[in-house]
Amino acid sequence: MTGSLARFSVNQMTVKQLSLPELADACRDLGVVNVGLWREPVRTYGVEATAKLVRDAGLTVTTLCRGGFLTAIDPAERAAALADNRRAVDEAAALGTEVLVLVSGGLPAGSRDLHGARERIADALAELGPYAERHGVKLAIEPLHPMYAADRCVVSTLAQALDLAERFPAHQVGVTVDTYHVWWDDRAPAQIARAGAGGRIHSFQLADWTTPLPEGVLNGRGQIGDGAIDMREWRGHVEAAGYTGAIEVELFNDGLWARDGREVLAETAQRFLAHANR
Amino acid sequence: MTGSLARFSVNQMTVKQLSLPELADACRDLGVVNVGLWREPVRTYGVEATAKLVRDAGLTVTTLCRGGFLTAIDPAERAAALADNRRAVDEAAALGTEVLVLVSGGLPAGSRDLHGARERIADALAELGPYAERHGVKLAIEPLHPMYAADRCVVSTLAQALDLAERFPAHQVGVTVDTYHVWWDDRAPAQIARAGAGGRIHSFQLADWTTPLPEGVLNGRGQIGDGAIDMREWRGHVEAAGYTGAIEVELFNDGLWARDGREVLAETAQRFLAHANR
Repeated sequence: MTGSLARFSVNQMTVKQLSLPELADACRDLGVVNVGLWREPVRTYGVEATAKLVRDAGLTVTTLCRGGFLTAIDPAERAAALADNRRAVDEAAALGTEVLVLVSGGLPAGSRDLHGARERIADALAELGPYAERHGVKLAIEPLHPMYAADRCVVSTLAQALDLAERFPAHQVGVTVDTYHVWWDDRAPAQIARAGAGGRIHSFQLADWTTPLPEGVLNGRGQIGDGAIDMREWRGHVEAAGYTGAIEVELFNDGLWARDGREVLAETAQRFLAHANR
Repeated sequence: MTGSLARFSVNQMTVKQLSLPELADACRDLGVVNVGLWREPVRTYGVEATAKLVRDAGLTVTTLCRGGFLTAIDPAERAAALADNRRAVDEAAALGTEVLVLVSGGLPAGSRDLHGARERIADALAELGPYAERHGVKLAIEPLHPMYAADRCVVSTLAQALDLAERFPAHQVGVTVDTYHVWWDDRAPAQIARAGAGGRIHSFQLADWTTPLPEGVLNGRGQIGDGAIDMREWRGHVEAAGYTGAIEVELFNDGLWARDGREVLAETAQRFLAHANR
């Protein structure tokens, strides 16, 4: 491979077929120095064990995915969600990452009130932001594509995410910019500039848009270069807004998961260099 | 059924298992006085024959779906698209409807340029708008949900649709407001007001948002009342903006298509009365 992988980060979900030690080995062999981690496999392996593994491997943890799901109305459910998010902050701190990505949650069963759900997220952030700050962790609201608004994330645009984030200090709450979720939005470049001016771009992720979408629309995120998104253009937007951090490739893709994980990681790094490097 | 179906229109696709004569019969039996038609079944039955059928049945044709697909780069493809859209205008005029709904088209193969595609739509409207006006037909740009941006419609929001429409006189080019496509968008109510102020709400359609989405995400539009969308709220927005026209229920749904068409039409009218009447 030619070009630098210094900014490249592989999100663990892209190669979820690899165990954490296998992922660390593959990163070492390929010269990958950054990883984004997910709570479930980290907890399975053990938070402290994972922290030691990545430290020994010289890997930087760029994000922990994910907290969130903060839209419940039921008081017990809300309390449980807040407690779980505090644990996620603790885990992020233990792993040495500054950024906890938040997927905000969908509509509660039977509700049709998007506005109310978004306000409950703000209420939760008022509790979680100071907690995260005390642990040296920043919360990154990730707007998800509008096709997830009902069942996964009522925050559908960067503008909405920033409207929420800006109620809090930037070192507590910012946003994740993921090309897969925002590529269709002609307002997104201006919102990236807004986020950058406020110091609120806490994470930048790449996935490509390929069709047809699979049933459930969760696991059809395209390999970089296979789809409709101009990765260099979006990298240009976030860098023009002052972002200098890692660029994390996060793919949920049944086809990629069915293949050899080391091969997929090598391909992903190559695609990053071919389509997203500047 | 109690309540008035005076504003209700059934889009032909909702009950596509019915032939045009069957549809006319079912409408008469149920007291449905408005229909939205699609070009393909109309052309199969014959444009003049359809015009006579609906006239004899006392039905008002609220829209013809659909023209559009105006994003091609290749000159021969563009010329063919324009010719086809002129035919669609002719058909709308022959059917006695004022409104031709436009689905604008996706990205050409290999292209990643959403902005360029949107500009080619504007170029096409400059030719089609005056042609439609001469035939007494208004073009209605329908923003489609952002999940269709790559392969079906690069116009993803009402704001984008109005940015295009407002380059032309309102009696040439306006918009279609379809709840399925805009319900997630917190800017949509303000854009509906903008459209209404300009006299550009040429059509209003209902479908509900249900999950999980099916493979390909085309045929999962939910029956009114089954999903996440508050129909009365959206009806309120378009009526506050001055819209007094028909309210067309347009469902693409494999489950509904597998059932008896007359039964589905009766259910749809009942759901309209229960969830969308004011």
